[in-house]
Amino acid sequence: MRSPTPPPPSSSGTRPAAPPAPPRSDADDERLARSVRDRLDAKTKPVGSLGGLEDLAVRLAVALGTDRPRLRDGQVVVCAADHGLARHGVSAYPSEVTRQMVAGFLAGGAAVSVLARQHGLGLTVVDCGTAVPPDPHPRLVSRRLGPGTQDCTVGPAMTPGIARTAVAQGRELAAVLPGDAVLLGEMGIANTSSATLLASLLLDRPVAEVLGAGTGLDDAGLARKREALERARALHGDARDPLDVLSRVGGFEIATLVGVVLQCAQERRVVVVDGFITAAAVLVAERLEPGTVRACVASHRSAEPGHAVVLEALGLDPVLQLGLRLGEASGAALAWPLLLSACAVLEEMATFGSAGVSGPAR
Amino acid sequence: MRSPTPPPPSSSGTRPAAPPAPPRSDADDERLARSVRDRLDAKTKPVGSLGGLEDLAVRLAVALGTDRPRLRDGQVVVCAADHGLARHGVSAYPSEVTRQMVAGFLAGGAAVSVLARQHGLGLTVVDCGTAVPPDPHPRLVSRRLGPGTQDCTVGPAMTPGIARTAVAQGRELAAVLPGDAVLLGEMGIANTSSATLLASLLLDRPVAEVLGAGTGLDDAGLARKREALERARALHGDARDPLDVLSRVGGFEIATLVGVVLQCAQERRVVVVDGFITAAAVLVAERLEPGTVRACVASHRSAEPGHAVVLEALGLDPVLQLGLRLGEASGAALAWPLLLSACAVLEEMATFGSAGVSGPAR
Repeated sequence: MRSPTPPPPSSSGTRPAAPPAPPRSDADDERLARSVRDRLDAKTKPVGSLGGLEDLAVRLAVALGTDRPRLRDGQVVVCAADHGLARHGVSAYPSEVTRQMVAGFLAGGAAVSVLARQHGLGLTVVDCGTAVPPDPHPRLVSRRLGPGTQDCTVGPAMTPGIARTAVAQGRELAAVLPGDAVLLGEMGIANTSSATLLASLLLDRPVAEVLGAGTGLDDAGLARKREALERARALHGDARDPLDVLSRVGGFEIATLVGVVLQCAQERRVVVVDGFITAAAVLVAERLEPGTVRACVASHRSAEPGHAVVLEALGLDPVLQLGLRLGEASGAALAWPLLLSACAVLEEMATFGSAGVSGPAR
Repeated sequence: MRSPTPPPPSSSGTRPAAPPAPPRSDADDERLARSVRDRLDAKTKPVGSLGGLEDLAVRLAVALGTDRPRLRDGQVVVCAADHGLARHGVSAYPSEVTRQMVAGFLAGGAAVSVLARQHGLGLTVVDCGTAVPPDPHPRLVSRRLGPGTQDCTVGPAMTPGIARTAVAQGRELAAVLPGDAVLLGEMGIANTSSATLLASLLLDRPVAEVLGAGTGLDDAGLARKREALERARALHGDARDPLDVLSRVGGFEIATLVGVVLQCAQERRVVVVDGFITAAAVLVAERLEPGTVRACVASHRSAEPGHAVVLEALGLDPVLQLGLRLGEASGAALAWPLLLSACAVLEEMATFGSAGVSGPAR
C-alpha cells in the first residue's frame, strides 16, 4: 500500500504562484486541436481508429494548452458537507453518513480511497461543513462554512457572502495542489437534490426532467424528493445570476468545488468531472466564467438523469458509461488511466514514416 | 520504459502443468456470483452504486472460479496472419501491412505496445502465417501455418487439419504463459472479412447484417467487400460444424486464438476479448466447447456492426464504448485497469460494519 499523500500546504504554502495563463481564444483551441489530430493521423493505425481515445487526447491538449499533453501527479479533491434539504427525507441515507464517509475516505476503505491508491493519485478530503464536525485527522483539510446549509425550501441555503467565501476557498485549495489535473469528488447526503435544483434553475428545466433516485430512493422517497424540490424551485425561481442561484440552492461542498474548477481552468490544469454533483459545480463555474468548461473532461455518465442533461448542456462527452451513482470521484478515478492512455498514444506511438508501414492502398 | 517481456518458453517450457480445473456447473457459478454480490452489498456504498464495475467483479469471479478474484501478470497475445480474401480489395490496406505491423508491435511503437507498457502487461506476438515471413526478432514467436490462407471465395481458407493444428498451437501458447488473464489481440489485413463470414455462418445471419467498413473502407470498397463475402457465404453455406466453418472461412490467427481461448477457459484464466475478430474467435471456441464464454470479459464494443451482434449472441456486455476499430488488443489493454479496479474494490473496500457507517435510513 502506498503511503498516503500529505495534506496540501496552507494557502501560504510552497507551490510557486502559477503565472497567469495567456488568454485562450477559439482560434488557439482550433489550432491545437488540428495539430493533435494531424499527429494522431500520422500514427501507425487507420485514421480515427482509436475513436473516443483520440477525442480525449484532443480535449486534454486544449485543456492544458499544449499539443503534447502530459498528466503528472493527478489529485483527487473530495469536498464534503451537509444539506438542510436532508430533513425532507430526500436521500436514502441519514446526514451522519456524510461525516462517517469522510472518516472512511481518510481511513482508506472507501471506493475513492481504493481507486486513488490503485492509480497513485493524491487524495485531499475537505470538510466544507458537515452537520457535526468530523474527528480531526492529520490529512483532513477543514474549510467549514457552517454545520450544513439551511433548508432551501424555506429560504436561501447560504448567504451570497458565504457562497463567495466557499468559491474563494476552493480556489486557494486548488492553487496549492501539485500536478496537471484535479479529479473532482464530493460527499454530502442530499446533494443530488442540491445539484437537481442548480441544474433546474440554471438550465431552465422543470425539476422532473433532472430528478433521479440519487443513492437509491424508493418510489415514495422519490415522490417526497420531487415535492420538496418543486417547492424550493418555486421559492427561488426568480434567481438568475449564477452566484445567486448557487447561494440559494447550492451546498458548501458544491460552492467550494466551483472555486476548484475556476482555479484549475485559470491555471490550465485539467478538471476531471465525476458525477451529477460535480457536473453541477462545473455548470455554475461555466456560468460565472464562460469558457471554463474547456478545462474539463467528463469521466462518465451516471445513472442519474440530470447528469446527462448537464453534460449535454456543457458539451461534454463522457468517457465511461458504467451506470455509476456513487460520487466521491469514483468515476473520475476509474477513467484516469484512459486519460493517461490518450496522452501515451499521442506521445509514444510511431508514425507510418518512422515505422516503415504502408498507408492505405488507395 | 519497462524492459520487454521475454518470449514464452516453448511448449516444453517451465510453467508447471495446471491441474485440470474441476468441471463447473451453473449452480457453482450462481453461488460464486451471489457470494460476490453479497460482499459488494456490504461495502460502504449504496447497493449497486458502482454499476458496471460490480458486474465486472462478478464476471471475473465466475471466470476465475473464486469469490476473491485477483489478476496478476496479465498477458497480451497478438496473433498475426494474412488472408487470401485480401486479393479482392476487401481492406483499405495492402497485405504487407500485416508483416510491417508485426515489426511495429515488437519495436514498441504500435498502439498495443504503448498500452501494454503503460499497464505492465506482457506482450507476445505470434506469426501464424503472414504472406511474407517477418524478420526474425528475439521476441517473435513463429507458429506459421502457411503464407496466408487461401481465397475462400473459391474454396476453403485452409484444410480442417491445419485448423486443428492452429487450435492446438494456440492451446500450447496459452499453456506456457504466466498469469491469470490473457488479452486477445490480432493483426491481419482482411480479417474483419473472415470474422464477418464466421459470424454470418455460425449465427445464421445475412452477410449484410454483420458487415462493416473495417479499418476504413469507402463506399466502393464496402460494396466490393460485400460482393466477395456474399460469394464466399454462398459457397460455404452448407458448413455447420464449427471446425468446418473455421477451416473454410477463418484465418490462421483466428484459429490460433480459438486455441488460446479454449486453453484459458480450461485453466480458469480470464480471457479479455478485444474487437470483432477476437469476438469471432470466442464464438468459434464457444461452439466447439459450450461454456467457454464464462471465462470471457468483453473489453469494448467497436464501431464494427458485427461486433455488437457477436457480443450479444455470446451474452457479453462490453466495459467500454469508445468507437474503437483498431484491433491489436488495444481495447482489451485500455479496459485492463477497470478489471483491476473491480478486483480492488471487492478486496479492499471497507464494509458498513467495519467502518462504522450507517446504512440506509429506512
